[in-house]
Amino acid sequence: MDNVFNFSAGPAGLPKAVMEKAQKELVDWNNLGTSVMEISHRSKEFIKVAEDAEQDLRDLLNIPDNYKVLFCQGGARAQFAAVPMNLLGSAKKATYIDAGYWAESAISEASKYCQVDTFNAKSEIDGKTAVLSASDWQVDPEAAYVHFCPNETIDGVEIADLPVTDKPIVADMSSTILSREIDVAKYGVIYAGAQKNIGPAGLCIAIVRDDLLEFAHDLLPSFMNYKILAEKESMFNTPPTFAWYLSGLVFKWLKEQGGVAAMEQINKEKAQLLYQQIDDSDFYINNVHPNNRSRMNVPFQLAKPELDALFLEQAAAKGLVSLKGHRAVGGMRASIYNAVPLEGVQALVAFMQEFEANNA
Amino acid sequence: MDNVFNFSAGPAGLPKAVMEKAQKELVDWNNLGTSVMEISHRSKEFIKVAEDAEQDLRDLLNIPDNYKVLFCQGGARAQFAAVPMNLLGSAKKATYIDAGYWAESAISEASKYCQVDTFNAKSEIDGKTAVLSASDWQVDPEAAYVHFCPNETIDGVEIADLPVTDKPIVADMSSTILSREIDVAKYGVIYAGAQKNIGPAGLCIAIVRDDLLEFAHDLLPSFMNYKILAEKESMFNTPPTFAWYLSGLVFKWLKEQGGVAAMEQINKEKAQLLYQQIDDSDFYINNVHPNNRSRMNVPFQLAKPELDALFLEQAAAKGLVSLKGHRAVGGMRASIYNAVPLEGVQALVAFMQEFEANNA
Repeated sequence: MDNVFNFSAGPAGLPKAVMEKAQKELVDWNNLGTSVMEISHRSKEFIKVAEDAEQDLRDLLNIPDNYKVLFCQGGARAQFAAVPMNLLGSAKKATYIDAGYWAESAISEASKYCQVDTFNAKSEIDGKTAVLSASDWQVDPEAAYVHFCPNETIDGVEIADLPVTDKPIVADMSSTILSREIDVAKYGVIYAGAQKNIGPAGLCIAIVRDDLLEFAHDLLPSFMNYKILAEKESMFNTPPTFAWYLSGLVFKWLKEQGGVAAMEQINKEKAQLLYQQIDDSDFYINNVHPNNRSRMNVPFQLAKPELDALFLEQAAAKGLVSLKGHRAVGGMRASIYNAVPLEGVQALVAFMQEFEANNA
Repeated sequence: MDNVFNFSAGPAGLPKAVMEKAQKELVDWNNLGTSVMEISHRSKEFIKVAEDAEQDLRDLLNIPDNYKVLFCQGGARAQFAAVPMNLLGSAKKATYIDAGYWAESAISEASKYCQVDTFNAKSEIDGKTAVLSASDWQVDPEAAYVHFCPNETIDGVEIADLPVTDKPIVADMSSTILSREIDVAKYGVIYAGAQKNIGPAGLCIAIVRDDLLEFAHDLLPSFMNYKILAEKESMFNTPPTFAWYLSGLVFKWLKEQGGVAAMEQINKEKAQLLYQQIDDSDFYINNVHPNNRSRMNVPFQLAKPELDALFLEQAAAKGLVSLKGHRAVGGMRASIYNAVPLEGVQALVAFMQEFEANNA
């Protein structure tokens, strides 16, 4: 099928130009007569891929020199364990801000390693889901760090501000990294599973301030140890080379688009267009307060949920795919990461108008 | 470059037919208009990929029903920690058989979790590297399990027999899985990083007898927990979907070739041909005793090591690539996994004869 717009929450669509390049060179990369995934991670050709990807990511996010960029195996769930096991040291507590499903999953895992001081930041304004202002969050004075998830993919909730604390701030940016400008220097650790805004599943980027490399738990598996990964340039183990390569292509594509600032403008426009369509109609419903609406994941319901299946079927027939809501929530969800172009959202909005006209 | 034969030790070459299929459908898989790596792991389309891959692997290895097949993130180094953290339970000891580099790496990691009873199985026969017969291995009566690595990729050493023990046998089959017939029922756990005989890096298969799922350490990260992975059908976390898909294509290709028994015959023939060439000449040297020569990884030296660079350069010019030996050993290494066809080894042998004639 041609002309598909893919709204998958993850593993998500990658930029079309990136996938076409990957396809072209899949069996003969760099004139080697083999795929990039069929060569040693220690070959000079792959080392260049690895170094370029890191440098491009550093450029895109203005990552300061005192931060290590680690290309880790696994995804965010691996980091849910890696974070406490790497950062607690002799501390016994960490503060976790709870604003949704993924924060809660991180809390559940962290509870194996420490006493989790959970701050419930969930709130309501005018009957809509919201998040308490970060200036109101309470951080335990004995916490080794403060963890939060700035974008909740399932809840469709976003937190734009940062904890007010002198503790290291740890952020699960799986679904928001590279979608907007951030000041890396304000964080202790940023991590992100690749399969939303970076590349294919199986890779996780961790950006770690270098004074935080010294606190590993004795039982931390070595391949998850930030210090070892930093010392070995993420090649202590054989890294997921194809995912690393493809992520590198995405980084280069982002630079060609004008970088993160340019993406942020487009992402604002995409989100605005879609929320406007929802708000302009009684046929579509989004239950998140505008203060905290996610720019990346837009869950919405039909006022007539009996039409859900028909909506999905007709959308798919128009090439608007992977719009089914998360099983925990139901309804629809349009994930509009960097790789979804403005035209994709325009096509979705046009379809929503048409579907409403036919079924209201 | 065309007509390349890739002797990489890992990430290694994949079957040409598999890579060509993957290329053809990279941007439009299953007529979805997207890549298989761009859809949800919970979509019905991907679930079918996942289930087919598992069933094909079960068919290929005749895996009994009381074994779980887990598609894990990471590679063998992740399992170096996962094995003790999953299997020790209240035991304090495990026996590890040391016959080479990778066994020693597993021992080093396991030492964080238990008292490792190391049995040094390294030996020499007629000045050649060998391994003590498995019937002579000593297993600690208090060991929770016995770990060994049947094929050492760097040393070029293979162990064809099994520990004689009533303890669960754990085998790191990263470089030998699917290359020869095995009786899975004799093992407690078999694990294998994908990037040698299965698929791309970033995936590790673990085959676990189901009575061994109950001994997880409290601090075992959940995404490494065999029981959780088994209960969630390897989708507790977002799995490395593209690697899983590609491995599934390899399994189907193996079935088309006649399965593991057929591969074993070809692999014997390939190894025989290459070792014969080495033994027939004083120009090439392999230091492993015939009892323990690896069928998968054939390290060899030139009697005139000053010619190493020339050998590699001229081989590459003929499309015989990735022959450089591991940095710990030097010289050459031809890894001749399933994906390397007999013609590849024939071409290598012809080149070795030519190079010797020109440089002896």
